[in-house]
Amino acid sequence: MRISYRKELEKAARQMILIHRTDTLIKLIIRAVIRNLRVTHAGIFLYQKDKKVYVLTISKGKEGIKIPSGLVRLSFDSPLIRYFLDSSYRLDKSNYLILENVKRWLKRGKIKKNKIYKDFFKQLIYLLSLIKVKVALPIFFHDELLGVFVLGEKLSKKKFSSDELAFLSILSSDVAMAIRNASLFEDLRLQLERNQKLFLQTISALAQAIEAKDKYTIGHTERVVDLSLKIAHQLKRIRRIKDWDRFEHNLKIAALLHDIGKIGVPETILNKPTSLNEKEWEFIKRHPLIGVEILSPIKDLGKVIEAIKYHHERFDGKGYPEGLKERKIPLISAIIAVADAYDAMTSDRPYRKALSPQEAKSEIKKNKGLQFHPQVVDAFLKVFPNGK
Amino acid sequence: MRISYRKELEKAARQMILIHRTDTLIKLIIRAVIRNLRVTHAGIFLYQKDKKVYVLTISKGKEGIKIPSGLVRLSFDSPLIRYFLDSSYRLDKSNYLILENVKRWLKRGKIKKNKIYKDFFKQLIYLLSLIKVKVALPIFFHDELLGVFVLGEKLSKKKFSSDELAFLSILSSDVAMAIRNASLFEDLRLQLERNQKLFLQTISALAQAIEAKDKYTIGHTERVVDLSLKIAHQLKRIRRIKDWDRFEHNLKIAALLHDIGKIGVPETILNKPTSLNEKEWEFIKRHPLIGVEILSPIKDLGKVIEAIKYHHERFDGKGYPEGLKERKIPLISAIIAVADAYDAMTSDRPYRKALSPQEAKSEIKKNKGLQFHPQVVDAFLKVFPNGK
Repeated sequence: MRISYRKELEKAARQMILIHRTDTLIKLIIRAVIRNLRVTHAGIFLYQKDKKVYVLTISKGKEGIKIPSGLVRLSFDSPLIRYFLDSSYRLDKSNYLILENVKRWLKRGKIKKNKIYKDFFKQLIYLLSLIKVKVALPIFFHDELLGVFVLGEKLSKKKFSSDELAFLSILSSDVAMAIRNASLFEDLRLQLERNQKLFLQTISALAQAIEAKDKYTIGHTERVVDLSLKIAHQLKRIRRIKDWDRFEHNLKIAALLHDIGKIGVPETILNKPTSLNEKEWEFIKRHPLIGVEILSPIKDLGKVIEAIKYHHERFDGKGYPEGLKERKIPLISAIIAVADAYDAMTSDRPYRKALSPQEAKSEIKKNKGLQFHPQVVDAFLKVFPNGK
Repeated sequence: MRISYRKELEKAARQMILIHRTDTLIKLIIRAVIRNLRVTHAGIFLYQKDKKVYVLTISKGKEGIKIPSGLVRLSFDSPLIRYFLDSSYRLDKSNYLILENVKRWLKRGKIKKNKIYKDFFKQLIYLLSLIKVKVALPIFFHDELLGVFVLGEKLSKKKFSSDELAFLSILSSDVAMAIRNASLFEDLRLQLERNQKLFLQTISALAQAIEAKDKYTIGHTERVVDLSLKIAHQLKRIRRIKDWDRFEHNLKIAALLHDIGKIGVPETILNKPTSLNEKEWEFIKRHPLIGVEILSPIKDLGKVIEAIKYHHERFDGKGYPEGLKERKIPLISAIIAVADAYDAMTSDRPYRKALSPQEAKSEIKKNKGLQFHPQVVDAFLKVFPNGK
């Protein structure tokens, strides 16, 4: 019976290693402590780097008290935090804090005469009774106080045994390591997210800068990205798309960079106000291959480069640069082809006025299976509900 | 005495949570097992996803056997792996494998008559004696066999007690979680590295594409990045640079993108074979601000954008776009300014021939404290040892 709580708590401690979210981690451990040690409530004050305070992350009890999480905050000036950070206040040698002991210390003659100590312990007792805490244990990682473990009283009203307290100390150090592990994970994941965002933002900015060279296509890239993603989402409902997350990511990057090769086309051709002659057309038609050339050193962009290369191929094989046919054309290219054509048709050009959305749509419909991939056209048409 | 090994091993298991390199982790646990259980040797076969084999990662003994790590590989066909993956071969209910038990099973009448079982157990015994293993325990994470824990015999020649075996089982499941934790961490870190590389490669490719518009500056960006980094490394030896890693990273990106604004300068001006008139010069001088404009939506590039903005400022305040002076010019800009000037001077231009490295260097030296930041010039000169 004496060690019945151990097994369960040890199991909980063991599971902590794979919990990489600090809040889930704390919830797990608090629940296990309350259930196995049978206390009125328990909670953890967790240090928040950005705010420089210890916030009561969770405090729950089977019966009795429940302090709303996030409400109680302790600064470095709080007596509970100072107790653990400044060893001169610890009058016994244990690393935990027991309310009854502090009350006893206050009755000592020496303490009574020392105003600093007296005031400190009075404040500490006041704080502990306010949050109904009988026992507190520090959660240290090396010298860093990551948090404080607080416990109410046992449902049996008995004192905590020295065995239980020793066990709780070990548990605290396990919790410290688990919190550390989780926060390292959180940091890494956050960094990864920031990095991915940075990557997309940067290529988007550069693509737009390159697009600005072609004064007839302002906003084109952004609109093609947007429409391509919408088509892909509809397409996913029609047919299976393998490794969807990766596919969507590649589509986004390919759509962003699909016209990157235009940087290799002279401005005089891009901005010519009249229609182009054959030689000039040949130059324009090289832009997918110039795009490939620019991005070719980047190994991780293999699929994206392929998609850019073929975004002017036609389903019937009459496109460029290679005249690929039907299923040989990468699906991402086929999607961009439709989005690209729609946006081009609905934009003014020096040599013709823009088509209306209706006209452009029926043009694309007419070319289903000829210029465009049939399923992609079906998905494209579903993007506009109510014929809008 | 009976549980003396526990405490130490539990401590080792506890430390595993913060070890995010699988190999270090395994080294730690093997060392602790050998020391505390007093066995001739111990090792772990770890599953390698890419190769689809179990590789003996480490096997060390205080005395006796030491199998070189990486040498022994087990495929899914190996009897040791099949024993743990196919429950029909396990004739007892424990999750561990004891050589002596298998030998005993082989003597059973039923097994003797069953060729499949007989052959399997014979192969298993042969393999275990080859690698001198008396006891093996699976390292399972859910249904996934991450590895196999193998142990030689105890130095005392005694059998492993059921207590020890039960404890080793728990330890194996701790090791499983720790390996899982470490490999998740490794995956995340690898992904981050790949992402950072992708980011740099992509902006490098795009910067070079933009540079290609200006036919007189082929290779300029790459050389400026290279020289800027070299100057920064020398500068670090002369003066303190706060948060060096961040600084170097920002310098690299800023150097890569320093001329990105040239995309907003008409090709006719960039490629003009004769010297520019005042109006054309005004256009050229706008390129730092155009660069700022292009990158301004990207919050995380704050320092980089600032550095690009001021890379044509002069130490004496006579530069553009703002005429900033001395310490007001960001250090990154001051470094790029020197690298940029050196590379421009040592390259042919339509209206002048390239200076020799010697001439360019003395030109920069002459401008120390005028056009260029004095410390940066000192660092720059140190980049060329022996006056090379």
